[in-house]
This record gives sequence, structure tokens and C-alpha cells, in this order.
Amino acid sequence: MLRMSELIERKRNGNKLSASEIRWIIQEYVAGTIPDCQMAAWAMAVFFQGMNAEETMELTMAMAQSGDILEWSLKDKLVVDKHSTGGVGDKTTLVVVPLVASCGVPVAKMSGRGLGHTGGTLDKLLAIPGFNVELSSEDMRRQVGDIGLAIAAQSASLVPADKKLYGLRDVTACVDSIPLIASSVMSKKIAAGAQGIVLDVKYGSGAFMTTRDRAQQLAEIMLAIGEGLGRSTRALISPMEEPLGMAVGNSLEVMEAIEVLQGGGPKDLREICIELAANMLMVGGRTGNEREAQALAVQGLQGSNMPGASVQEGFPQKVITQEPTRSTPAWQMFQTLVAAQGGSLDAFWEEVQGQRRHGIEPVLFLSPAKGTLARLDARRIGQAAMLLGAGRDTQDSPVDVHAGIQLYKKCGDTTEKGEPLMALYLSSQEPTPQEKMGRVCEVLKDAIDFRIN
Amino acid sequence: MLRMSELIERKRNGNKLSASEIRWIIQEYVAGTIPDCQMAAWAMAVFFQGMNAEETMELTMAMAQSGDILEWSLKDKLVVDKHSTGGVGDKTTLVVVPLVASCGVPVAKMSGRGLGHTGGTLDKLLAIPGFNVELSSEDMRRQVGDIGLAIAAQSASLVPADKKLYGLRDVTACVDSIPLIASSVMSKKIAAGAQGIVLDVKYGSGAFMTTRDRAQQLAEIMLAIGEGLGRSTRALISPMEEPLGMAVGNSLEVMEAIEVLQGGGPKDLREICIELAANMLMVGGRTGNEREAQALAVQGLQGSNMPGASVQEGFPQKVITQEPTRSTPAWQMFQTLVAAQGGSLDAFWEEVQGQRRHGIEPVLFLSPAKGTLARLDARRIGQAAMLLGAGRDTQDSPVDVHAGIQLYKKCGDTTEKGEPLMALYLSSQEPTPQEKMGRVCEVLKDAIDFRIN
Repeated sequence: MLRMSELIERKRNGNKLSASEIRWIIQEYVAGTIPDCQMAAWAMAVFFQGMNAEETMELTMAMAQSGDILEWSLKDKLVVDKHSTGGVGDKTTLVVVPLVASCGVPVAKMSGRGLGHTGGTLDKLLAIPGFNVELSSEDMRRQVGDIGLAIAAQSASLVPADKKLYGLRDVTACVDSIPLIASSVMSKKIAAGAQGIVLDVKYGSGAFMTTRDRAQQLAEIMLAIGEGLGRSTRALISPMEEPLGMAVGNSLEVMEAIEVLQGGGPKDLREICIELAANMLMVGGRTGNEREAQALAVQGLQGSNMPGASVQEGFPQKVITQEPTRSTPAWQMFQTLVAAQGGSLDAFWEEVQGQRRHGIEPVLFLSPAKGTLARLDARRIGQAAMLLGAGRDTQDSPVDVHAGIQLYKKCGDTTEKGEPLMALYLSSQEPTPQEKMGRVCEVLKDAIDFRIN
Repeated sequence: MLRMSELIERKRNGNKLSASEIRWIIQEYVAGTIPDCQMAAWAMAVFFQGMNAEETMELTMAMAQSGDILEWSLKDKLVVDKHSTGGVGDKTTLVVVPLVASCGVPVAKMSGRGLGHTGGTLDKLLAIPGFNVELSSEDMRRQVGDIGLAIAAQSASLVPADKKLYGLRDVTACVDSIPLIASSVMSKKIAAGAQGIVLDVKYGSGAFMTTRDRAQQLAEIMLAIGEGLGRSTRALISPMEEPLGMAVGNSLEVMEAIEVLQGGGPKDLREICIELAANMLMVGGRTGNEREAQALAVQGLQGSNMPGASVQEGFPQKVITQEPTRSTPAWQMFQTLVAAQGGSLDAFWEEVQGQRRHGIEPVLFLSPAKGTLARLDARRIGQAAMLLGAGRDTQDSPVDVHAGIQLYKKCGDTTEKGEPLMALYLSSQEPTPQEKMGRVCEVLKDAIDFRIN
């Protein structure tokens, strides 16, 4: 107790902690001899005083070494991973993992659940009936060897320090600290054995980093850690002022990801997927040339039209069909992934359409004015989707896979007064009380600004 | 959990919390629904972001109201209390409480135990065999009514929030925060019902506030709280660079306090006791005139020589006798106090002399140089005394009442090389290991600087 209180005081006073001090803190915290109250005070001191690159790297290694560390040895191929710092409507993982794998670079992706206004890849995948995200390290190793990709929940044996510390930071307002975020992200990538790492660092209202400056700082420290620990690492910095794509909510986002995999989808989503995939191909050693990497990624989303298939864009909601418009290499790889992990896309389509058949119609949110949509606040849209049941406000809350928000307009689009801006998909599990809908509408009104033309 | 994490975040971001938010935090923390980890993060956020006067006053009231609140009604007399922010060798309470009571102002003093390098009044009183510091509120009320004074441990039913929060701050490096110190001190004074309050705010190496500036800030906020809550309040700001008086350690300090009570004692100690007592007489309504208050306090320490008595100042240690040199009103009041609370001064003298008879001789610390003592660091002297057994490093450590340090020289005194600077009284309970004595000497060497003449 005494030694930890001295280390808290030293950090509180702005001093640097040594490698052995940082290791001792993580070891003793995981062992339970440093209590949560001391760790929380330390985390808050780090929030205010920061950590330099050396301290952050030591913290990353100490956390990674708190559990198992995987090692990949796939003949001549490097196994890559990507990480997004989280955002609203960010379904890029569902697209880029099969896309990169279809270009011959194996991807072993460890994902998390969503929290607060941001969604998580695992929650999206769980919208596909039967999809198993709980792979053992052995299952994961076999699957990546066999078909070249896997997406799974992080196994409990990896980075126990991060699980414990993240849970604590979450309830003590210590999430938003660059060294703590960097070490949390990178310790998981290191422990999962990624040989190439691509980081998608978001900034803006919907991201943890609200300014580009802070996103840049976070990206730089994570790059330094990755390179310092011998992993080929690249980072993108991308805005998250409005949601990515048009869909927010788990099954809605799966459908949108499928559109992109089939060669369509919203432009902003498609472009960042190509950018991410190109970077993953580079850290995976597929090519050293940026233009070539881009071209490979674009090809992975191109394919032949399937005869007789179409997506009928109806109003107020999409009429979803299970027939793909085009068969692309990435879409084929996605189907392979879903099948390998026990999921059924047939059951997914059936469930989505069943929802509609049972009279659970979305509620339209109409434009209160004529003009140009000048702001569509990602954080508030995420919060509204969470209130509808698409996300969780605490780590144990349930999630409704079909709840969410489908956007019809994004920033820069013009709208008439009374024209639908979005459709709200309510939770099917219980009727949404009037009062809650009132709160959702309040949040949405706050999310939107118009420019009168 | 959720609401508290938002309040931590708001404070972390430098925002002001409302009265109802502060009350809610204290209520829920005492009730156990806010866990220690959240409270620790909040306290650290307060350390960095501070609280304004309004927030600090609300925190004080919320803490005071977490338990019982005493009310005094002693006919036409106001009951006063004093508080020192802690220091090394600070035995003023033992002097000023009987001194003020002897001038006709009732004193109900709630005291604490020592921690770290600072001593506590309760530990000093417990050096007197039989002295009972555990008075119920009822006992205290009766005793103050009967004889005009009482010194007791704070009853467990007063300010439970402070007990819980102080224990937490102590292990999380959150002690040194002005609003947290101010609310801790003032909530106890308010709950104990003090109608007049005198604050002795120390600064310097031996105090919690290391600079005069911070002591001034602390004094101002405590004055504002006291006056805001309708208590007549005065504050002194006094240095604590070297120990107060010549004795550090519980029984040594009792002996020194008795010297002052009998009209003698070191000049610095005597002067601050008179200053404190004069202020207490003023907040107690005895007089509104500072000069008159001073004169009354001086008179309380004056008296007739007792025939045939003397303190024989021997070397290397004092030869203590139980015969007072002079009988002063304050000394008589002190004897009344000790008797009322079950203590025996005869047994005290006997035990002190018994120590000496059993061959437990002090170790002399000799001057390493000839010159003028330029620095005698209070904090380090306090730490050395603690290592000898006079204080505790955690709230549950035992204390040896006879261990401590008797100074022979203070700053400005000249010394020959090899002349004794101080005598170290070792713990009588177990032999002090060589290694520990080595650490004590290291600390003491660091405590001292000489100016070569």
C-alpha cells in the first residue's frame, strides 16, 4: 500500500516512473495486491500528468505480458490486424478483414464489444445467427491457417491487465488519456501476435479523441510503440464528425457492410475501407507500393454482376433481398468466414425480414426545416441509437441486434421540411416507452443543424 | 456508477459541481453505493482542478451532516475549539486548552492521532497512564459543563464521511489538496459544535502546506467556511521549518508542555501558545481586544514559585522531577483535566523515570562540525522520530510513548564539533536493530545544515 501511494504521488507530481516501477504496478494490480482505489488514483494522475513514450511502451509491454502472448508462423506470410479507436457506424472491420484476406494476406482480428455511443464489431457479428465469436487461440490459429481469416473476441487469457484496468477506467472517467488508450490498444495487438498492424485513429464528435491534434498524438505514440516492438505499423487519421456510412445499429450495419462487400455501399464507407485494406496489404508485405496496394483493394471489391439480382431501394425502408448484386472476391471471402464460424446468412436475412413482417416498422424522423444539412453529430446519433437498444451504457447491458438508425441524408444533402432524415428501428423485445422516445428525439434534435439556403 | 463517473468527469474537466451533486456524492459514498475506486478518482480530480469556496463549503456541510452534530448551550458562554494543521513537536493543544479554560472560556477539543512525520495530540495524552480519550458526547458535555474543558478522540458518530474519505486519501496520495483539507478540518469543528474556532495553519518543511502562500490559501478558505456557517473563526499562520520546542515524541512532549504550563519552556513554544490562547479567548467572547487577550493568556502562565522545587537540567538528559517550579492557573487546570479523564501524572513520572532506571539510555547524536546550526528540517526530524517508534506510518501501527528526540540545539545556535545536538530515545519494547539506527542517522544527517563561522 505504502509503495503504491508513493508511486501515485510521484506521478501526481509529474515525475517519470521507471520500467521496473511500471511493471511492478501492473503485476501487483493483476495479482490483486494493489487495490482498485489506488489504481484509480494512479490512472487519474496519469490522465493529468501524462506519460512519455518510454513509459507508455513499458506500460504496453507490462500489460501484454500479464497474460498469454500468441505467436504466428504462417510459412512466408505475415499475419495482420487492424484497430479502430471507435466511432459511430464504423463497420469497416466487416469489410476489410475479408477484403485483405481475399488479396492473400492472412488476418487474425481480435475485436471488442461496443460501449457508450460507439458500436463494437462483436455486437455486429452477433447479429448473424449462429456466428461464434468465442474462438480459442487454437481454433483461431487453425482457421487462419485454413481459410486466411478469423474475427473473434479477445480470449480471456490475453492481456488480463487491460480487462481489469479498462473496467476501472470506464467507471472512473479515466478512459480519455492518450498513454492509457495507446497501451490498451497496443498491448492487445502485441499479445495477439499481430506482425503487421494498421491503426484507424478517429477524431471528432463521435470519437474518443475530439480533435485532430489529439488523434495525431495518439497515432504517433502507437506507431512508436508498434515499431519499437518490431511490428510493422501504419496509422490512418480519419474524421468522425458524422456517422460513417448510412447505418448505425448492428443488423443495419451488417447489411451496409454487405453492400460494400458486393461492390456498392456509401462512398465514405467504401473509401475508408479501401484505404484501410491498402495499408493492411502493405504492413502484411503484399506490396511496398501504395498505389499498387490501393489497386489490389479496389479489385477485391469488383466482380461480375449476378444475373437477375437487385437491391430494391424502397421508401421508407430498404427492401432487403438476399441475392447479391455482384459477386466480388471480398464478398466470397466474407461468406467463407461466416460459414467457418458457424453463422448463417440465410437465417440473418430471414430474421431481418421477419422483423418487418411482424409489423415492427421504423419510426421516421422528419426534417424540421428546408435547407442543407450542415451538421449531423456522430456522438448524438450514437447516443440515440444506444437509447433505442442498439448499444449498451454499461458493460453488462443487453443489446438488441435489430435496433438502430438508418440515415437518409448526410451533411451537405438538401432537404425539404417534413422530408424523412432518418428511420428509427425500435427494440423488438419490448415496446419502447413514450418517455424514452421523447428522449431519443431530444438527442436527435440536438444532433442536427441546418443551413437555410 | 454511471452518475458518479459523470461527476468525476465534470470535476476532471474543471467544472463546478452543484450543492446537490456534492451532497449526493458524500451520502452515497458513506452509504457504500459509490465504491472507493470512484471516490479516489474524484479526489484526485479535485487535487488537480480544485474547488471554489462555495463547493468547499457545501462539501464541509455534507461531511458534517454525514453523522451526529453536537450543540453546546453553556448558559452565556461560547465553547471554543482549536485546530492545528499538524507539525513536528506541536504540543500546543496540551498547553492552550487548560490555559484558555483557566481564563474562563470553555474548551471542547476533539483531537486526532498522528500520522507520518506529524504527531497527534491523542498519542501524547495516551503517554499519561490511565488518560481516557474515548469520551462519549454525553461525557464530554458533562465534563465541559463541570470543569470547563475536555480533550477527546472524535466520537465515531461524528463525521463518518471524513473518516472514510481520509483513509482513502491517505493511500491514494490525495491528502495534499486545499479544499479536501479545509473540508476535513472544518466539518469536524462544525460537527463538534464549536461556537468559536481558532485555526493554526502551519507551513514549511514539517507541515502539509510547504509554502506560506498555500497556508494562506488554506487559512482563507477555512475562515470563509467558518464565518459562512456562523462560527466566530480566527486563523494564525505559523512556520514549521524546524520542530516546535525542543521535544519530539509523546512522553517527551508531555514533559515539555508541562514546563510551559508551569511558566517555563522554550520561547518559540511559549509564544505560539500565548498567541493561540489569546485568539481563542477572542473567539470565545472573553474580550474583543487583542492586547487584553494576550495579557490574560500571559497571566494564565504566571504564578508563584513553589518553595523548594526545581527542574534540574542535567546533561545528557533532563533529570525530571515531579515537583512543579511554579503553580500557574493553566497548570492547575491541566491537573484537573488529567484527573477528570482518569489519568495519573504520578504514574507518568514514575514510568518516565522507570525507563531511565532500566538502563534505556538515549543515544546522543553529535555535531559533525563546528559552526552555527543553519537548518534543522522539521519533516526529517519527524521522520526520524517516527522510525524510532514515536509515530506511525500507517493508521494501524503501534506507537511507543517513550520514543522520540530531545533537541539540545535549534537554528541559530552555535555548536562545537562532537557536541551533542540531540538525544535519541529508542523504543523500549524491542531492541532497535542496527540497520534501523543507520536509517535514522541517515535521515538526521539530511535534516541538518551548518554555517561555518
